[in-house]
Amino acid sequence: MTQLYGGVVPPVCTPLTPERELDVPSLERLAAFLIEGGMHALFVTGSTGEVAYLPDETRYRVLEVVAGVSSGQVPVLAGVIDTTTPRVIEHAKAAKAAGADALVATAPFYAPTDPVEFPGHFRAIRAAVDLPLIAYDIPVSVGHKLPTDLLLTLTQDGTIDAVKDSSGDLDGLRALLESDVPVRCLTGSEVLADVALFLGSHGLVPGLGNVDPHGYVRLYEAALRGDWDAAKTEQQRLRKLFRIIFVGDGRMGRYSSAMGAFKEGLVARGVIAGGTTSHPMIPLDDTERASVRSHLAEAGLL
Amino acid sequence: MTQLYGGVVPPVCTPLTPERELDVPSLERLAAFLIEGGMHALFVTGSTGEVAYLPDETRYRVLEVVAGVSSGQVPVLAGVIDTTTPRVIEHAKAAKAAGADALVATAPFYAPTDPVEFPGHFRAIRAAVDLPLIAYDIPVSVGHKLPTDLLLTLTQDGTIDAVKDSSGDLDGLRALLESDVPVRCLTGSEVLADVALFLGSHGLVPGLGNVDPHGYVRLYEAALRGDWDAAKTEQQRLRKLFRIIFVGDGRMGRYSSAMGAFKEGLVARGVIAGGTTSHPMIPLDDTERASVRSHLAEAGLL
Amino acid sequence: MTQLYGGVVPPVCTPLTPERELDVPSLERLAAFLIEGGMHALFVTGSTGEVAYLPDETRYRVLEVVAGVSSGQVPVLAGVIDTTTPRVIEHAKAAKAAGADALVATAPFYAPTDPVEFPGHFRAIRAAVDLPLIAYDIPVSVGHKLPTDLLLTLTQDGTIDAVKDSSGDLDGLRALLESDVPVRCLTGSEVLADVALFLGSHGLVPGLGNVDPHGYVRLYEAALRGDWDAAKTEQQRLRKLFRIIFVGDGRMGRYSSAMGAFKEGLVARGVIAGGTTSHPMIPLDDTERASVRSHLAEAGLL
Amino acid sequence: MTQLYGGVVPPVCTPLTPERELDVPSLERLAAFLIEGGMHALFVTGSTGEVAYLPDETRYRVLEVVAGVSSGQVPVLAGVIDTTTPRVIEHAKAAKAAGADALVATAPFYAPTDPVEFPGHFRAIRAAVDLPLIAYDIPVSVGHKLPTDLLLTLTQDGTIDAVKDSSGDLDGLRALLESDVPVRCLTGSEVLADVALFLGSHGLVPGLGNVDPHGYVRLYEAALRGDWDAAKTEQQRLRKLFRIIFVGDGRMGRYSSAMGAFKEGLVARGVIAGGTTSHPMIPLDDTERASVRSHLAEAGLL
Repeated sequence: MTQLYGGVVPPVCTPLTPERELDVPSLERLAAFLIEGGMHALFVTGSTGEVAYLPDETRYRVLEVVAGVSSGQVPVLAGVIDTTTPRVIEHAKAAKAAGADALVATAPFYAPTDPVEFPGHFRAIRAAVDLPLIAYDIPVSVGHKLPTDLLLTLTQDGTIDAVKDSSGDLDGLRALLESDVPVRCLTGSEVLADVALFLGSHGLVPGLGNVDPHGYVRLYEAALRGDWDAAKTEQQRLRKLFRIIFVGDGRMGRYSSAMGAFKEGLVARGVIAGGTTSHPMIPLDDTERASVRSHLAEAGLL
Repeated sequence: MTQLYGGVVPPVCTPLTPERELDVPSLERLAAFLIEGGMHALFVTGSTGEVAYLPDETRYRVLEVVAGVSSGQVPVLAGVIDTTTPRVIEHAKAAKAAGADALVATAPFYAPTDPVEFPGHFRAIRAAVDLPLIAYDIPVSVGHKLPTDLLLTLTQDGTIDAVKDSSGDLDGLRALLESDVPVRCLTGSEVLADVALFLGSHGLVPGLGNVDPHGYVRLYEAALRGDWDAAKTEQQRLRKLFRIIFVGDGRMGRYSSAMGAFKEGLVARGVIAGGTTSHPMIPLDDTERASVRSHLAEAGLL
Repeated sequence: MTQLYGGVVPPVCTPLTPERELDVPSLERLAAFLIEGGMHALFVTGSTGEVAYLPDETRYRVLEVVAGVSSGQVPVLAGVIDTTTPRVIEHAKAAKAAGADALVATAPFYAPTDPVEFPGHFRAIRAAVDLPLIAYDIPVSVGHKLPTDLLLTLTQDGTIDAVKDSSGDLDGLRALLESDVPVRCLTGSEVLADVALFLGSHGLVPGLGNVDPHGYVRLYEAALRGDWDAAKTEQQRLRKLFRIIFVGDGRMGRYSSAMGAFKEGLVARGVIAGGTTSHPMIPLDDTERASVRSHLAEAGLL
Repeated sequence: MTQLYGGVVPPVCTPLTPERELDVPSLERLAAFLIEGGMHALFVTGSTGEVAYLPDETRYRVLEVVAGVSSGQVPVLAGVIDTTTPRVIEHAKAAKAAGADALVATAPFYAPTDPVEFPGHFRAIRAAVDLPLIAYDIPVSVGHKLPTDLLLTLTQDGTIDAVKDSSGDLDGLRALLESDVPVRCLTGSEVLADVALFLGSHGLVPGLGNVDPHGYVRLYEAALRGDWDAAKTEQQRLRKLFRIIFVGDGRMGRYSSAMGAFKEGLVARGVIAGGTTSHPMIPLDDTERASVRSHLAEAGLL
């Protein structure tokens, strides 16, 4: 399982029925599609998996289904996303029971908190559940950047095994990668993945990887062999495709638009049955869905 | 139950044992202390109740215990705090089963969201569970201010019954109170409660009310009879007492310090057994606890 | 000159010709209108005076004109608004030469700065020019709130003579007013002026006071005699009038809209000749100007 | 003058005497040092040039001195940094008279403004003074990011000739560079210069280039020939050197520390006479200056 924290590790979408129940057959097809597409691991119940919208039972069921499809072919990482330590630990225990190979946890949120309280948070999670732990740095959701020094300390003392960086702070990412501490980094960026690899990142966690896994594999492999021009060219193609996330602009929030677009892309490619997203996200309308398909056609995916 | 959304409605602290389990006898004593202190309603599992730190079962147990002590003497409001609509609805159903008289819900958080998605959020909660609903406006925790127009619309169409304003935006609060729509407003401020009442607010939700319920009753009653000088004098006394929340400054986050101080104040007054706070909050040390007691002594509470 | 830092002290608008030159006759009429309206002092080259848009020579000419009209009837305060200490000192010297009775200076801006550098900033200004100095707390423009402790220290050591508070932080304002240090405070809020006076503020600096000076005098006098209901009623009338600042919403920035509205109000009342605002502000159109007039009519000002 | 908007274009430091007057001989030596070091152009009165701290006369004198040293060897760009259009235009006229080859202007600041007002701002500047205009995107100072669409439009209609990007937003920079519009981009980042060039940027504006111009030339030339590994290695060396900006951390603002460090580095290298910075910046102490020198020694610059 050497690739646990490297390669392309998409945050798996969570297909829903029109009644907003988990669509298990679609999820099974999606997991298979991604494994066949060459993904090195799968990350379930992340932001792109609508984790913040899923009741607990659905979260754990998603994990069971994907772990079942994988059956050890690739590791399955589980987001254990909740406000504070005690609630995260509940999810972590359930995720271990449901078959997770590693856990992904953020800093506390909602509750006003302070970086001096972060070490205790991550150490308590690691102590409570014996699985590799990935620190998820996502200030846009939690309101705090994980400080570089903290990430280095937690790596050195064995609390965390990797960092998932969705901070948008490439200087901070680079400080991690250039330190003397061997921190493993996965970038959450769809659009600067080539740069993250150029700086030494070990892997990618692109939401768009649900729709075009093969593109990210080409990008990753070009980077592995040091062919930066090829990596950049592939990235530019994926950047264009990524514009599907803007189809709902002006009528809904960006996240509604992006989730709707990823799911519609998967419908268009025949992977999942429907593009329903969770409450209170606003659904794409016909024009917006057509726009998604037209982007996919332009990218050669239909 | 005319006072459901008015008067002094403290956000009840959640006493914990040294092992961080719910301390039921202490919670019972606290609820009784507050009811005897003249509180017009009790708000459980709010921010001051460490809701973000409590596993689901503990949340519902807190509500059962407090509802049991009240036995209809005063209404019990329950915070149903979670990231998005489906998760909030799960809490709302459980809260109704556990005896809540009304629900308190925020805008979505963690998941990037947009104000155009807020009406659907509150309407879906109201439709799912038949209890009065209070919109909790707390941008510091959720990243969005609830727009004035939204609150007016949701009041007019019967979705919400009141607003709990922890926004710090007195101009926005005033816009609500001066509109033609009869919005009922509760302020979350400990330190501008007299001003909120001067502007027409119907009630107070002061965390410090755990420690000094009688002070907030005096303030409220002075306001009711239009004696603004008396209200201001009482507020000034409470503002001095509120400085207990700074005892941990420089060594921990402000919230750790405030929660620790409220609980230590309740220990000092003989109401609860211990001042333990949840993970990953940093506990007060001996000096800080002594400082809390010295503030209480100065305020004539010991 | 006991009222130097108290009473109603409007930030005087700067009338411009259609060619965007200073309209001296209009400015003279405006100054006279405000003095006759009972203003206790006049504040020129503040934010409402479009100070950030005026070339240096225009700034000093505005001050000369207003000081000339006043001729000692009321004090004239001059905003010395620039990025850092050396540039502010240049303005301060020129303002003294042009007849200012006191100076109003903000924290440094544009240049990344830090609160530890603020004491040196204000002390150097005070040392360079022997005039009373007012600290202007306007985080929305400069990116920093002036810390309460700093304002207390600068008051105690004689650096500043008053604080102009446009921070929107009523808790911070109250902390100043309730401290043992006799800080004099002027609020910049048009819409919470009654509250600021209730908390003990000494004066008001309302941009809307250009248009309706008499209303703010009534509000101030009601507060002086402790008639809070009358103060509130007048404030509510002024809050409605203040909605003129929204006439351009959706088509321009809020400040373009507010400056245009204040000037159009003065045109409608026959005080100044035209409503031209500075580059790159967007001018009001006919519909928006008509809306301003309709608000004034409703407020009984036409 | 093909290199006007490409290559290495350092923002030239402004040496001051101990009395905080312009140190002309030091400035002359610095300009000569940079030209000999291979700089493709010089940028005076930028943020690193302490523009926000310089009185007008000093600003123009700096420009004259540097233009005099260059005498056409390299273009000289002048920052025309002020709050709004009319004030910027004053600087632009003075800069043209003092010998500027191009102007660098930001969005308006201090005055609350709105992106809809930006086109008028830049167009008015361009119309008023016939020199190439560079849009300076520096949200940390002005509070607004220049929108990508605006920059494309202003490029297409001939208003601006280039963009100086100090936004930290590499995705936005990349959107500019990958558009169909031939926007020329200069990055203001010292620490991601290799990445900016990898993405297609045309030039670098590194404050650290004052201290180590040769390093940035090596980085730039490696990028020109597509040797990304060499560019990255040089960047890593420069990233270590850049840590000099942290020597004052905890005792002053970051900018005080950085300006002090750049100047102390130039003193240590024998280029300028003293490290004095402007009011109200806090000066480096002996320990901090020694730390700067030790970093330079480690980087092989002493």
